[in-house]
Amino acid sequence: MSIGKTTKYSSDIHDLRMKIRMNEWSSQTTGMAPQNVQTNLAVLPEEYAFDFLLYCQRNPQACPVIEVLRPGVSQPSFVSNRADIRTDLPKYVIYEHGKKICEVEDIQSYWRDDLVTFLIGCAFTFQGPLLDAGIHIRHLEEGRSDPTYITSIATRRAGIFYGPLVVSMWPVKWKDVAKVVQITGRLPLAHGSPVHIGDPKHLGIVDLDHPEYGEAVSLQEDEVPVFWACGVTPQQAAAKAKPSLMITHSSSHMFITDLSYRHLDIM
Amino acid sequence: MSIGKTTKYSSDIHDLRMKIRMNEWSSQTTGMAPQNVQTNLAVLPEEYAFDFLLYCQRNPQACPVIEVLRPGVSQPSFVSNRADIRTDLPKYVIYEHGKKICEVEDIQSYWRDDLVTFLIGCAFTFQGPLLDAGIHIRHLEEGRSDPTYITSIATRRAGIFYGPLVVSMWPVKWKDVAKVVQITGRLPLAHGSPVHIGDPKHLGIVDLDHPEYGEAVSLQEDEVPVFWACGVTPQQAAAKAKPSLMITHSSSHMFITDLSYRHLDIM
Repeated sequence: MSIGKTTKYSSDIHDLRMKIRMNEWSSQTTGMAPQNVQTNLAVLPEEYAFDFLLYCQRNPQACPVIEVLRPGVSQPSFVSNRADIRTDLPKYVIYEHGKKICEVEDIQSYWRDDLVTFLIGCAFTFQGPLLDAGIHIRHLEEGRSDPTYITSIATRRAGIFYGPLVVSMWPVKWKDVAKVVQITGRLPLAHGSPVHIGDPKHLGIVDLDHPEYGEAVSLQEDEVPVFWACGVTPQQAAAKAKPSLMITHSSSHMFITDLSYRHLDIM
Repeated sequence: MSIGKTTKYSSDIHDLRMKIRMNEWSSQTTGMAPQNVQTNLAVLPEEYAFDFLLYCQRNPQACPVIEVLRPGVSQPSFVSNRADIRTDLPKYVIYEHGKKICEVEDIQSYWRDDLVTFLIGCAFTFQGPLLDAGIHIRHLEEGRSDPTYITSIATRRAGIFYGPLVVSMWPVKWKDVAKVVQITGRLPLAHGSPVHIGDPKHLGIVDLDHPEYGEAVSLQEDEVPVFWACGVTPQQAAAKAKPSLMITHSSSHMFITDLSYRHLDIM
Protein backbone atom coordinates (compact mmCIF):
# COMPACT_ATOMS: atom_id res chain seq x y z
CA MET A 1 0.00 0.00 0.00
CA SER A 2 1.20 3.47 -0.87
CA ILE A 3 -0.08 6.73 0.55
CA GLY A 4 2.33 9.30 -0.76
CA LYS A 5 5.18 10.50 1.33
CA THR A 6 4.31 8.59 4.47
CA THR A 7 4.75 5.17 2.88
CA LYS A 8 8.35 4.90 3.91
CA TYR A 9 7.35 4.75 7.58
CA SER A 10 4.63 2.16 7.26
CA SER A 11 6.90 -0.89 7.15
CA ASP A 12 8.11 -0.54 10.70
CA ILE A 13 5.87 0.96 13.31
CA HIS A 14 8.61 1.01 15.92
CA ASP A 15 10.88 3.10 13.67
CA LEU A 16 7.96 5.40 12.96
CA ARG A 17 7.28 5.85 16.66
CA MET A 18 10.96 6.51 17.33
CA LYS A 19 10.87 9.35 14.78
CA ILE A 20 7.82 10.74 16.55
CA ARG A 21 9.52 10.30 19.96
CA MET A 22 12.61 12.18 18.72
CA ASN A 23 10.33 14.94 17.37
CA GLU A 24 11.45 14.18 13.81
CA TRP A 25 7.77 13.85 12.91
CA SER A 26 5.31 16.25 14.52
CA SER A 27 2.64 16.40 11.83
CA GLN A 28 -0.71 14.66 11.62
CA THR A 29 -0.96 10.87 11.32
CA THR A 30 -3.85 10.55 8.86
CA GLY A 31 -2.82 8.17 6.08
CA MET A 32 0.20 6.89 8.01
CA ALA A 33 0.57 3.17 8.78
CA PRO A 34 -2.83 2.42 7.24
CA GLN A 35 -2.81 -1.24 8.33
CA ASN A 36 -2.49 -0.21 11.99
CA VAL A 37 -4.97 0.81 14.63
CA GLN A 38 -4.70 4.48 15.56
CA THR A 39 -6.16 5.89 18.77
CA ASN A 40 -7.30 9.11 20.38
CA LEU A 41 -5.63 10.01 23.66
CA ALA A 42 -7.28 11.32 26.82
CA VAL A 43 -5.30 11.69 30.06
CA LEU A 44 -7.06 12.73 33.27
CA PRO A 45 -6.33 12.80 37.01
CA GLU A 46 -7.55 9.69 38.82
CA GLU A 47 -10.39 11.53 40.55
CA TYR A 48 -12.17 11.84 37.17
CA ALA A 49 -11.32 8.36 35.88
CA PHE A 50 -14.49 6.48 36.81
CA ASP A 51 -16.80 9.19 35.47
CA PHE A 52 -14.81 9.37 32.25
CA LEU A 53 -14.73 5.59 31.73
CA LEU A 54 -18.48 5.57 32.39
CA TYR A 55 -18.94 8.38 29.85
CA CYS A 56 -17.11 6.21 27.31
CA GLN A 57 -19.21 3.15 28.20
CA ARG A 58 -22.40 5.19 27.72
CA ASN A 59 -21.27 6.60 24.38
CA PRO A 60 -19.46 3.69 22.75
CA GLN A 61 -19.69 4.91 19.16
CA ALA A 62 -17.94 8.18 20.00
CA CYS A 63 -15.65 6.76 22.70
CA PRO A 64 -14.79 3.12 21.97
CA VAL A 65 -12.26 2.26 24.68
CA ILE A 66 -9.33 0.21 23.40
CA GLU A 67 -7.04 0.41 26.43
CA VAL A 68 -7.00 2.16 29.80
CA LEU A 69 -3.74 2.39 31.77
CA ARG A 70 -3.70 2.38 35.57
CA PRO A 71 -2.81 5.64 37.39
CA GLY A 72 0.75 6.78 36.70
CA VAL A 73 1.36 4.11 34.01
CA SER A 74 2.44 5.54 30.64
CA GLN A 75 3.34 2.33 28.80
CA PRO A 76 0.48 0.42 27.20
CA SER A 77 0.46 -3.37 27.50
CA PHE A 78 -2.32 -4.31 25.08
CA VAL A 79 -1.83 -2.12 22.01
CA SER A 80 1.98 -2.14 22.17
CA ASN A 81 4.71 -3.41 24.49
CA ARG A 82 7.32 -0.82 23.53
CA ALA A 83 5.54 2.52 23.47
CA ASP A 84 5.25 5.43 25.87
CA ILE A 85 2.26 7.66 25.51
CA ARG A 86 4.19 10.64 26.99
CA THR A 87 6.46 10.87 23.94
CA ASP A 88 5.01 8.77 21.12
CA LEU A 89 2.31 11.07 19.79
CA PRO A 90 3.37 13.84 17.42
CA LYS A 91 1.49 16.61 19.23
CA TYR A 92 -0.53 17.05 22.44
CA VAL A 93 -2.95 19.64 23.82
CA ILE A 94 -2.94 20.62 27.50
CA TYR A 95 -6.25 21.78 29.02
CA GLU A 96 -6.59 23.27 32.51
CA HIS A 97 -10.09 23.76 33.91
CA GLY A 98 -11.47 23.25 30.40
CA LYS A 99 -9.25 25.89 28.81
CA LYS A 100 -6.66 25.07 26.17
CA ILE A 101 -3.27 26.15 27.58
CA CYS A 102 -0.82 25.02 24.90
CA GLU A 103 0.23 22.44 22.34
CA VAL A 104 3.43 20.47 23.00
CA GLU A 105 5.43 17.68 21.38
CA ASP A 106 5.80 15.62 24.52
CA ILE A 107 4.14 15.58 27.94
CA GLN A 108 6.96 14.30 30.16
CA SER A 109 7.10 17.53 32.13
CA TYR A 110 3.33 17.34 32.78
CA TRP A 111 3.38 13.72 33.92
CA ARG A 112 2.13 12.81 37.40
CA ASP A 113 1.57 9.58 39.30
CA ASP A 114 -2.20 10.11 39.45
CA LEU A 115 -2.75 10.47 35.70
CA VAL A 116 -4.94 7.86 33.99
CA THR A 117 -4.55 7.31 30.24
CA PHE A 118 -7.44 6.36 27.97
CA LEU A 119 -6.77 5.15 24.42
CA ILE A 120 -9.94 5.54 22.36
CA GLY A 121 -10.55 4.21 18.85
CA CYS A 122 -10.11 6.44 15.80
CA ALA A 123 -11.63 6.39 12.32
CA PHE A 124 -8.14 6.60 10.77
CA THR A 125 -8.10 2.85 11.49
CA PHE A 126 -10.66 2.51 8.66
CA GLN A 127 -8.29 3.92 6.10
CA GLY A 128 -6.44 0.66 5.42
CA PRO A 129 -9.49 -1.56 4.95
CA LEU A 130 -11.33 1.09 2.90
CA LEU A 131 -8.34 1.67 0.62
CA ASP A 132 -7.87 -2.11 0.31
CA ALA A 133 -11.50 -2.30 -0.88
CA GLY A 134 -10.87 0.34 -3.53
CA ILE A 135 -12.73 3.14 -1.74
CA HIS A 136 -11.42 6.67 -2.34
CA ILE A 137 -10.72 8.76 0.77
CA ARG A 138 -11.14 12.39 -0.16
CA HIS A 139 -9.20 14.02 2.67
CA LEU A 140 -6.18 11.83 1.89
CA GLU A 141 -6.42 12.64 -1.81
CA GLU A 142 -6.62 16.34 -0.99
CA GLY A 143 -3.85 16.16 1.63
CA ARG A 144 -6.07 17.42 4.45
CA SER A 145 -7.25 16.27 7.85
CA ASP A 146 -10.87 15.13 7.74
CA PRO A 147 -13.56 17.74 8.48
CA THR A 148 -15.15 17.35 11.91
CA TYR A 149 -18.38 18.96 13.12
CA ILE A 150 -20.14 19.56 16.44
CA THR A 151 -23.70 18.24 16.12
CA SER A 152 -26.94 19.14 17.89
CA ILE A 153 -27.17 15.58 19.26
CA ALA A 154 -26.51 15.20 22.99
CA THR A 155 -24.35 12.36 24.28
CA ARG A 156 -25.39 10.41 27.38
CA ARG A 157 -24.10 12.15 30.49
CA ALA A 158 -21.91 10.42 33.09
CA GLY A 159 -21.11 12.39 36.22
CA ILE A 160 -19.47 15.67 35.20
CA PHE A 161 -19.08 14.64 31.55
CA TYR A 162 -21.71 15.63 28.99
CA GLY A 163 -21.89 17.47 25.70
CA PRO A 164 -22.66 17.21 21.99
CA LEU A 165 -21.75 14.35 19.69
CA VAL A 166 -18.90 15.30 17.36
CA VAL A 167 -18.75 13.65 13.94
CA SER A 168 -16.28 13.43 11.08
CA MET A 169 -17.47 13.45 7.45
CA TRP A 170 -16.03 11.51 4.57
CA PRO A 171 -17.70 11.88 1.14
CA VAL A 172 -18.65 8.46 -0.30
CA LYS A 173 -19.86 7.60 -3.78
CA TRP A 174 -23.46 6.39 -3.65
CA LYS A 175 -22.39 3.10 -5.25
CA ASP A 176 -19.94 2.50 -2.38
CA VAL A 177 -22.19 3.37 0.59
CA ALA A 178 -23.28 -0.19 1.42
CA LYS A 179 -19.70 -1.46 1.20
CA VAL A 180 -18.46 1.37 3.45
CA VAL A 181 -21.16 0.63 6.04
CA GLN A 182 -20.19 -3.05 6.06
CA ILE A 183 -16.44 -2.46 6.33
CA THR A 184 -16.63 0.15 9.07
CA GLY A 185 -19.44 -1.69 10.89
CA ARG A 186 -17.04 -4.57 11.47
CA LEU A 187 -14.74 -2.24 13.42
CA PRO A 188 -16.85 -0.91 16.32
CA LEU A 189 -13.65 -0.11 18.25
CA ALA A 190 -12.77 2.35 15.48
CA HIS A 191 -16.22 4.08 15.79
CA GLY A 192 -18.04 1.36 13.76
CA SER A 193 -20.92 2.11 11.38
CA PRO A 194 -21.76 5.64 10.31
CA VAL A 195 -24.13 7.50 12.64
CA HIS A 196 -25.71 9.31 9.70
CA ILE A 197 -25.74 9.21 5.90
CA GLY A 198 -27.00 12.18 3.90
CA ASP A 199 -28.38 15.62 4.69
CA PRO A 200 -26.22 17.19 7.45
CA LYS A 201 -29.22 19.21 8.72
CA HIS A 202 -30.41 16.08 10.55
CA LEU A 203 -27.34 16.44 12.74
CA GLY A 204 -27.79 20.18 13.15
CA ILE A 205 -24.85 20.91 10.85
CA VAL A 206 -25.51 24.10 8.91
CA ASP A 207 -22.53 24.34 6.60
CA LEU A 208 -20.21 21.52 5.55
CA ASP A 209 -17.67 24.08 4.37
CA HIS A 210 -17.01 25.27 7.92
CA PRO A 211 -16.02 22.33 10.12
CA GLU A 212 -15.14 23.00 13.76
CA TYR A 213 -11.99 20.86 13.45
CA GLY A 214 -9.97 19.62 10.47
CA GLU A 215 -10.44 21.05 7.00
CA ALA A 216 -13.34 21.12 4.53
CA VAL A 217 -13.10 18.71 1.61
CA SER A 218 -14.89 18.74 -1.74
CA LEU A 219 -18.14 16.82 -2.21
CA GLN A 220 -18.82 15.62 -5.76
CA GLU A 221 -22.14 15.18 -7.52
CA ASP A 222 -22.21 11.37 -7.26
CA GLU A 223 -21.30 11.42 -3.57
CA VAL A 224 -23.15 11.59 -0.28
CA PRO A 225 -21.73 12.93 2.99
CA VAL A 226 -21.26 10.05 5.45
CA PHE A 227 -20.78 10.86 9.14
CA TRP A 228 -19.04 8.82 11.83
CA ALA A 229 -18.93 9.49 15.56
CA CYS A 230 -15.59 11.14 16.33
CA GLY A 231 -13.13 10.85 19.20
CA VAL A 232 -13.14 14.63 19.60
CA THR A 233 -16.48 14.09 21.42
CA PRO A 234 -14.86 13.45 24.84
CA GLN A 235 -12.70 16.58 24.42
CA GLN A 236 -15.90 18.58 24.00
CA ALA A 237 -17.28 16.89 27.12
CA ALA A 238 -14.11 17.74 29.04
CA ALA A 239 -14.29 21.35 27.86
CA LYS A 240 -17.70 21.54 29.57
CA ALA A 241 -16.73 19.51 32.65
CA LYS A 242 -13.60 21.63 33.23
CA PRO A 243 -11.41 19.03 34.99
CA SER A 244 -8.34 20.55 36.65
CA LEU A 245 -6.13 18.93 33.98
CA MET A 246 -6.77 17.05 30.75
CA ILE A 247 -4.22 16.09 28.14
CA THR A 248 -5.27 14.94 24.68
CA HIS A 249 -3.68 14.37 21.30
CA SER A 250 -3.74 17.39 19.03
CA SER A 251 -6.46 17.09 16.33
CA SER A 252 -5.44 14.40 13.77
CA HIS A 253 -2.13 13.76 15.61
CA MET A 254 -2.98 10.29 16.87
CA PHE A 255 -1.25 7.45 18.68
CA ILE A 256 -0.25 4.71 16.23
CA THR A 257 -0.43 1.28 17.86
CA ASP A 258 1.24 -2.03 17.01
CA LEU A 259 -2.15 -3.62 16.39
CA SER A 260 -3.32 -4.44 12.89
CA TYR A 261 -6.88 -3.31 12.22
CA ARG A 262 -7.59 -7.02 11.82
CA HIS A 263 -7.21 -7.34 15.60
CA LEU A 264 -10.37 -5.26 16.02
CA ASP A 265 -12.46 -7.00 13.36
CA ILE A 266 -15.55 -8.48 14.97
CA MET A 267 -16.09 -11.16 12.32
CA MET B 1 -42.66 -18.77 21.62
CA SER B 2 -43.40 -21.30 24.31
CA ILE B 3 -40.99 -22.54 26.96
CA GLY B 4 -43.13 -24.58 29.27
CA LYS B 5 -44.43 -23.10 32.44
CA THR B 6 -42.72 -19.72 32.10
CA THR B 7 -44.60 -18.80 28.94
CA LYS B 8 -47.39 -17.06 30.77
CA TYR B 9 -44.96 -14.42 32.04
CA SER B 10 -43.25 -13.68 28.75
CA SER B 11 -45.97 -11.50 27.29
CA ASP B 12 -45.49 -8.68 29.75
CA ILE B 13 -42.09 -8.04 31.25
CA HIS B 14 -43.43 -5.50 33.70
CA ASP B 15 -45.91 -8.01 35.15
CA LEU B 16 -43.13 -10.57 35.35
CA ARG B 17 -40.91 -8.15 37.23
CA MET B 18 -43.76 -7.26 39.58
CA LYS B 19 -44.11 -10.95 40.49
CA ILE B 20 -40.38 -11.07 41.17
CA ARG B 21 -40.59 -7.84 43.18
CA MET B 22 -43.42 -9.27 45.29
CA ASN B 23 -41.37 -12.46 45.80
CA GLU B 24 -43.99 -14.48 43.95
CA TRP B 25 -41.17 -15.77 41.74
CA SER B 26 -37.81 -16.50 43.34
CA SER B 27 -36.54 -19.24 41.02
CA GLN B 28 -34.02 -19.04 38.19
CA THR B 29 -34.74 -17.03 35.05
CA THR B 30 -33.26 -19.31 32.39
CA GLY B 31 -35.84 -19.80 29.64
CA MET B 32 -37.99 -16.92 30.85
CA ALA B 33 -38.79 -14.00 28.54
CA PRO B 34 -36.58 -15.45 25.78
CA GLN B 35 -36.91 -12.39 23.54
CA ASN B 36 -35.48 -10.13 26.24
CA VAL B 37 -31.97 -9.24 27.29
CA GLN B 38 -31.03 -10.70 30.68
CA THR B 39 -28.11 -9.41 32.72
CA ASN B 40 -25.76 -10.36 35.50
CA LEU B 41 -25.69 -8.03 38.51
CA ALA B 42 -22.65 -6.75 40.39
CA VAL B 43 -22.98 -4.07 43.08
CA LEU B 44 -19.88 -2.62 44.72
CA PRO B 45 -18.97 0.37 46.91
CA GLU B 46 -17.81 3.39 44.92
CA GLU B 47 -14.17 2.98 46.01
CA TYR B 48 -13.92 -0.17 43.84
CA ALA B 49 -15.97 1.11 40.90
CA PHE B 50 -13.17 2.32 38.61
CA ASP B 51 -11.11 -0.85 39.06
CA PHE B 52 -14.15 -3.02 38.44
CA LEU B 53 -15.23 -1.09 35.33
CA LEU B 54 -11.65 -1.37 34.08
CA TYR B 55 -11.69 -5.12 34.78
CA CYS B 56 -14.83 -5.37 32.63
CA GLN B 57 -13.25 -3.28 29.86
CA ARG B 58 -10.19 -5.55 29.86
CA ASN B 59 -12.28 -8.74 29.77
CA PRO B 60 -15.16 -7.84 27.48
CA GLN B 61 -16.20 -11.38 26.56
CA ALA B 62 -16.69 -12.35 30.22
CA CYS B 63 -17.90 -8.92 31.41
CA PRO B 64 -19.74 -7.10 28.61
CA VAL B 65 -21.05 -3.96 30.31
CA ILE B 66 -24.62 -3.07 29.33
CA GLU B 67 -25.34 -0.38 31.92
CA VAL B 68 -23.62 1.15 34.93
CA LEU B 69 -25.62 3.20 37.44
CA ARG B 70 -24.11 6.13 39.32
CA PRO B 71 -23.46 5.75 43.07
CA GLY B 72 -26.64 5.28 45.06
CA VAL B 73 -28.86 4.96 41.98
CA SER B 74 -30.91 1.74 41.86
CA GLN B 75 -33.14 2.47 38.87
CA PRO B 76 -31.69 1.79 35.42
CA SER B 77 -32.36 4.31 32.67
CA PHE B 78 -31.08 2.43 29.60
CA VAL B 79 -32.33 -1.15 29.97
CA SER B 80 -35.63 -0.19 31.62
CA ASN B 81 -37.39 2.91 32.92
CA ARG B 82 -39.54 1.17 35.51
CA ALA B 83 -37.27 -1.28 37.30
CA ASP B 84 -35.39 -1.25 40.59
CA ILE B 85 -32.42 -3.53 40.89
CA ARG B 86 -32.88 -3.78 44.69
CA THR B 87 -36.10 -5.78 44.32
CA ASP B 88 -36.44 -6.97 40.73
CA LEU B 89 -34.10 -9.97 40.71
CA PRO B 90 -35.43 -13.24 42.12
CA LYS B 91 -32.41 -13.91 44.35
CA TYR B 92 -29.20 -12.15 45.41
CA VAL B 93 -25.93 -13.17 47.09
CA ILE B 94 -24.22 -10.93 49.65
CA TYR B 95 -20.42 -11.19 49.92
CA GLU B 96 -18.36 -9.49 52.63
CA HIS B 97 -14.58 -9.46 52.25
CA GLY B 98 -14.89 -12.14 49.56
CA LYS B 99 -16.96 -14.48 51.71
CA LYS B 100 -20.54 -15.45 50.86
CA ILE B 101 -22.72 -14.29 53.77
CA CYS B 102 -26.23 -15.16 52.62
CA GLU B 103 -28.76 -15.32 49.80
CA VAL B 104 -31.74 -12.95 49.94
CA GLU B 105 -34.78 -12.10 47.84
CA ASP B 106 -34.27 -8.36 47.97
CA ILE B 107 -31.40 -6.05 48.92
CA GLN B 108 -33.26 -2.99 50.19
CA SER B 109 -31.86 -3.41 53.70
CA TYR B 110 -28.29 -3.58 52.30
CA TRP B 111 -28.64 -0.51 50.09
CA ARG B 112 -26.28 2.44 50.60
CA ASP B 113 -25.70 5.75 48.85
CA ASP B 114 -22.19 4.73 47.75
CA LEU B 115 -23.19 1.52 45.96
CA VAL B 116 -22.50 1.33 42.22
CA THR B 117 -24.51 -1.12 40.11
CA PHE B 118 -23.09 -2.90 37.07
CA LEU B 119 -25.40 -4.74 34.67
CA ILE B 120 -23.37 -7.23 32.65
CA GLY B 121 -24.54 -9.25 29.66
CA CYS B 122 -25.75 -12.85 30.07
CA ALA B 123 -25.84 -15.81 27.70
CA PHE B 124 -29.52 -16.39 28.53
CA THR B 125 -30.06 -13.56 26.04
CA PHE B 126 -29.04 -16.07 23.33
CA GLN B 127 -31.90 -18.37 24.13
CA GLY B 128 -34.52 -16.53 22.08
CA PRO B 129 -32.49 -16.19 18.88
CA LEU B 130 -31.16 -19.77 19.12
CA LEU B 131 -34.62 -21.22 19.68
CA ASP B 132 -35.96 -19.07 16.84
CA ALA B 133 -33.29 -20.65 14.61
CA GLY B 134 -34.38 -24.15 15.59
CA ILE B 135 -31.40 -24.87 17.85
CA HIS B 136 -32.03 -27.19 20.79
CA ILE B 137 -30.93 -25.91 24.21
CA ARG B 138 -30.17 -28.91 26.36
CA HIS B 139 -30.36 -27.31 29.80
CA LEU B 140 -33.82 -25.93 29.01
CA GLU B 141 -34.96 -29.32 27.71
CA GLU B 142 -33.66 -30.98 30.88
CA GLY B 143 -35.07 -28.27 33.18
CA ARG B 144 -31.65 -27.34 34.60
CA SER B 145 -29.45 -24.28 34.91
CA ASP B 146 -26.55 -24.45 32.46
CA PRO B 147 -23.29 -26.02 33.71
CA THR B 148 -20.55 -23.50 34.44
CA TYR B 149 -16.84 -24.24 34.92
CA ILE B 150 -13.80 -22.42 36.28
CA THR B 151 -11.05 -22.62 33.63
CA SER B 152 -7.26 -22.50 33.86
CA ILE B 153 -7.24 -19.35 31.70
CA ALA B 154 -6.39 -16.12 33.51
CA THR B 155 -8.36 -12.95 32.87
CA ARG B 156 -6.57 -9.62 32.45
CA ARG B 157 -6.06 -8.02 35.84
CA ALA B 158 -7.30 -4.51 36.72
CA GLY B 159 -6.29 -3.15 40.10
CA ILE B 160 -7.47 -5.55 42.79
CA PHE B 161 -9.54 -7.63 40.38
CA TYR B 162 -8.06 -10.76 38.77
CA GLY B 163 -8.85 -14.45 38.50
CA PRO B 164 -9.76 -17.29 36.16
CA LEU B 165 -12.12 -17.11 33.21
CA VAL B 166 -15.41 -18.88 33.98
CA VAL B 167 -17.31 -20.47 31.09
CA SER B 168 -20.72 -22.00 30.54
CA MET B 169 -21.18 -25.05 28.29
CA TRP B 170 -24.07 -25.79 25.98
CA PRO B 171 -23.93 -29.01 23.89
CA VAL B 172 -24.42 -28.23 20.18
CA LYS B 173 -24.98 -30.64 17.30
CA TRP B 174 -21.97 -30.58 14.94
CA LYS B 175 -24.29 -29.58 12.09
CA ASP B 176 -25.41 -26.49 14.04
CA VAL B 177 -22.02 -25.21 15.24
CA ALA B 178 -21.46 -22.67 12.46
CA LYS B 179 -24.98 -21.30 12.88
CA VAL B 180 -24.56 -21.03 16.65
CA VAL B 181 -21.24 -19.17 16.24
CA GLN B 182 -22.87 -16.72 13.84
CA ILE B 183 -25.97 -16.07 15.95
CA THR B 184 -24.10 -15.58 19.22
CA GLY B 185 -21.25 -13.67 17.56
CA ARG B 186 -23.75 -10.99 16.63
CA LEU B 187 -24.50 -10.41 20.33
CA PRO B 188 -21.14 -9.44 21.89
CA LEU B 189 -23.00 -7.75 24.78
CA ALA B 190 -24.39 -11.19 25.66
CA HIS B 191 -20.85 -12.72 25.71
CA GLY B 192 -20.66 -13.02 21.89
CA SER B 193 -18.92 -15.91 20.10
CA PRO B 194 -17.86 -19.05 21.93
CA VAL B 195 -14.40 -18.88 23.52
CA HIS B 196 -13.83 -22.58 22.80
CA ILE B 197 -15.41 -25.42 20.86
CA GLY B 198 -14.49 -29.04 21.62
CA ASP B 199 -12.20 -30.80 24.09
CA PRO B 200 -12.63 -29.17 27.54
CA LYS B 201 -9.01 -30.05 28.45
CA HIS B 202 -7.88 -27.01 26.46
CA LEU B 203 -9.62 -24.90 29.09
CA GLY B 204 -8.23 -26.95 31.98
CA ILE B 205 -11.64 -28.52 32.62
CA VAL B 206 -11.17 -32.10 33.84
CA ASP B 207 -14.71 -33.38 34.14
CA LEU B 208 -17.80 -31.98 32.41
CA ASP B 209 -19.99 -33.92 34.86
CA HIS B 210 -18.87 -31.76 37.78
CA PRO B 211 -19.46 -28.08 37.00
CA GLU B 212 -18.59 -25.51 39.68
CA TYR B 213 -21.96 -23.78 39.17
CA GLY B 214 -25.25 -24.87 37.61
CA GLU B 215 -25.96 -28.50 36.80
CA ALA B 216 -24.39 -31.07 34.44
CA VAL B 217 -26.33 -31.81 31.26
CA SER B 218 -26.14 -34.77 28.90
CA LEU B 219 -23.86 -34.65 25.85
CA GLN B 220 -24.99 -36.78 22.91
CA GLU B 221 -22.88 -38.56 20.33
CA ASP B 222 -23.53 -36.08 17.51
CA GLU B 223 -22.80 -33.09 19.74
CA VAL B 224 -19.75 -31.08 20.71
CA PRO B 225 -19.36 -29.07 23.93
CA VAL B 226 -19.38 -25.33 23.14
CA PHE B 227 -18.09 -22.89 25.75
CA TRP B 228 -18.96 -19.24 26.23
CA ALA B 229 -17.36 -16.75 28.61
CA CYS B 230 -19.64 -16.44 31.65
CA GLY B 231 -20.70 -13.55 33.85
CA VAL B 232 -19.72 -15.53 36.94
CA THR B 233 -16.13 -14.51 36.06
CA PRO B 234 -16.31 -11.16 37.91
CA GLN B 235 -17.72 -12.92 40.98
CA GLN B 236 -14.63 -15.14 41.01
CA ALA B 237 -12.49 -12.03 40.67
CA ALA B 238 -14.32 -10.39 43.57
CA ALA B 239 -13.87 -13.51 45.69
CA LYS B 240 -10.11 -13.05 45.25
CA ALA B 241 -10.13 -9.26 45.61
CA LYS B 242 -12.20 -9.41 48.81
CA PRO B 243 -13.96 -6.03 48.60
CA SER B 244 -15.67 -5.03 51.85
CA LEU B 245 -19.07 -5.63 50.20
CA MET B 246 -20.26 -7.10 46.91
CA ILE B 247 -23.80 -7.98 45.96
CA THR B 248 -24.54 -10.17 42.94
CA HIS B 249 -27.46 -12.08 41.49
CA SER B 250 -27.68 -15.67 42.67
CA SER B 251 -26.48 -18.11 39.99
CA SER B 252 -29.02 -18.23 37.10
CA HIS B 253 -31.33 -15.74 38.88
CA MET B 254 -30.77 -12.85 36.49
CA PHE B 255 -32.18 -9.36 35.92
CA ILE B 256 -34.65 -9.37 33.02
CA THR B 257 -34.55 -6.08 31.12
CA ASP B 258 -37.10 -4.38 28.88
CA LEU B 259 -34.70 -4.61 25.92
CA SER B 260 -35.28 -7.05 23.09
CA TYR B 261 -32.15 -9.01 22.18
CA ARG B 262 -32.47 -7.20 18.84
CA HIS B 263 -31.32 -4.03 20.61
CA LEU B 264 -27.90 -5.65 21.11
CA ASP B 265 -27.54 -7.10 17.61
CA ILE B 266 -24.47 -5.61 15.97
CA MET B 267 -25.62 -6.11 12.40
